[in-house]
Amino acid sequence: MRYELYYWTGIQGRGEYVRLALEDAGANYIDVAREEGDEVMMPFLQGAQSGPLPFAPPFLKAGRLVIAQTAAILFYLGPKLKLVPATESAQFHALQLQQTVADFVVEIHDTHHPIASGDYYENQRDAAKKRAEDFRECRLPKFLGYFEHVLERGGKKYALRSHSYVDLSLFQLMSGLDYAFPKAMKRLNRRMPLLRDLQKRVADRPSIATYLASERRLAFNESGIFRHYAELDDS
Amino acid sequence: MRYELYYWTGIQGRGEYVRLALEDAGANYIDVAREEGDEVMMPFLQGAQSGPLPFAPPFLKAGRLVIAQTAAILFYLGPKLKLVPATESAQFHALQLQQTVADFVVEIHDTHHPIASGDYYENQRDAAKKRAEDFRECRLPKFLGYFEHVLERGGKKYALRSHSYVDLSLFQLMSGLDYAFPKAMKRLNRRMPLLRDLQKRVADRPSIATYLASERRLAFNESGIFRHYAELDDS
Repeated sequence: MRYELYYWTGIQGRGEYVRLALEDAGANYIDVAREEGDEVMMPFLQGAQSGPLPFAPPFLKAGRLVIAQTAAILFYLGPKLKLVPATESAQFHALQLQQTVADFVVEIHDTHHPIASGDYYENQRDAAKKRAEDFRECRLPKFLGYFEHVLERGGKKYALRSHSYVDLSLFQLMSGLDYAFPKAMKRLNRRMPLLRDLQKRVADRPSIATYLASERRLAFNESGIFRHYAELDDS
Repeated sequence: MRYELYYWTGIQGRGEYVRLALEDAGANYIDVAREEGDEVMMPFLQGAQSGPLPFAPPFLKAGRLVIAQTAAILFYLGPKLKLVPATESAQFHALQLQQTVADFVVEIHDTHHPIASGDYYENQRDAAKKRAEDFRECRLPKFLGYFEHVLERGGKKYALRSHSYVDLSLFQLMSGLDYAFPKAMKRLNRRMPLLRDLQKRVADRPSIATYLASERRLAFNESGIFRHYAELDDS
């Protein structure tokens, strides 16, 4: 099977969680918009294609199946790429964790866009400062504390009992948060030793290390979800 | 199987999407916190129970399985309650639609809590007015237009090819939005005839009509996700 991933060019965004899974598994895939341009997604988003209508990228084409929503895509790919244990309970566990990752991603995004997702950051900077402060003090420790707890219960090394796409997503979260909120993340370091260890181990996986060093891995930037604005970090 | 649903008492919240599915199917279930109090959820949330750690309610106990996250719970229950077609493609379609419902719910919630989910509405009212304006002008028509398009593609009556838990969730969204934003919803009426028809048909399903008339259905209120603050609606 040659998978077709559709996601905006120019940012890592939500597509990156899928990309990391495909890269980790050495899957045969094409990153379609990067090859052919963003406009290749329009027929899907406008409903000119048959089958499910995606609300937004990313979406995956696997044969005749079209799947949108990151957590749904990973739930589908997980068993096929051997990136989740084979039991039903583990696969549902992975699904709920990945949906919590998705919820966290929304809150990370909204630190710089608390008022209007379609407007510029500069037009909502004052509200962003307030939301980012609450995020750093309340939400960031809450989510990271939750995932640290999940690792502890998983035997300290993995979110589930063995390597899975959830670990890859946790790596991505940690990397993005380090980029966006370096001071706040440093302050919280002592409270998340297992997440820090996981982050390092994922980065050292041969297929991931190769990917991260390649041109396929875009740099974080201020068009994406994880944005570094010094005024939104700890002072 | 007797399902155990765990969700906060006092609000419909995210638990309601699960409750509507269980009620529609006439499933054998217990709404545990309503019987025994919110504190019955704490051992799960604090990790004193074995198995997956929920980030937040709702979660469902089905035998030894514990599943959190609304869309994951419904993905699990769908086939068992015959509330989704039997094919893999339909079940993935339902999952991605339900995750889009979940994304919409976050945006609805954040109209009254754009800065800090743990703080009072009154302390973020000015930002809420701005966020709600963008929501009414941009996000509300975008999401409703999307779901209207989904119904059109599903044969005009259902999100999928036949009745499913997604239709029940769309009913809940429409009802809640009518409560929270009556003027904006009236303004958008002509653009969503299929959603309005679906909303009526779901309300008329005998099991749903019975449920809605029962004491088990709580009223919408200003502690829940859908809140009516006149200053956040069209003027």
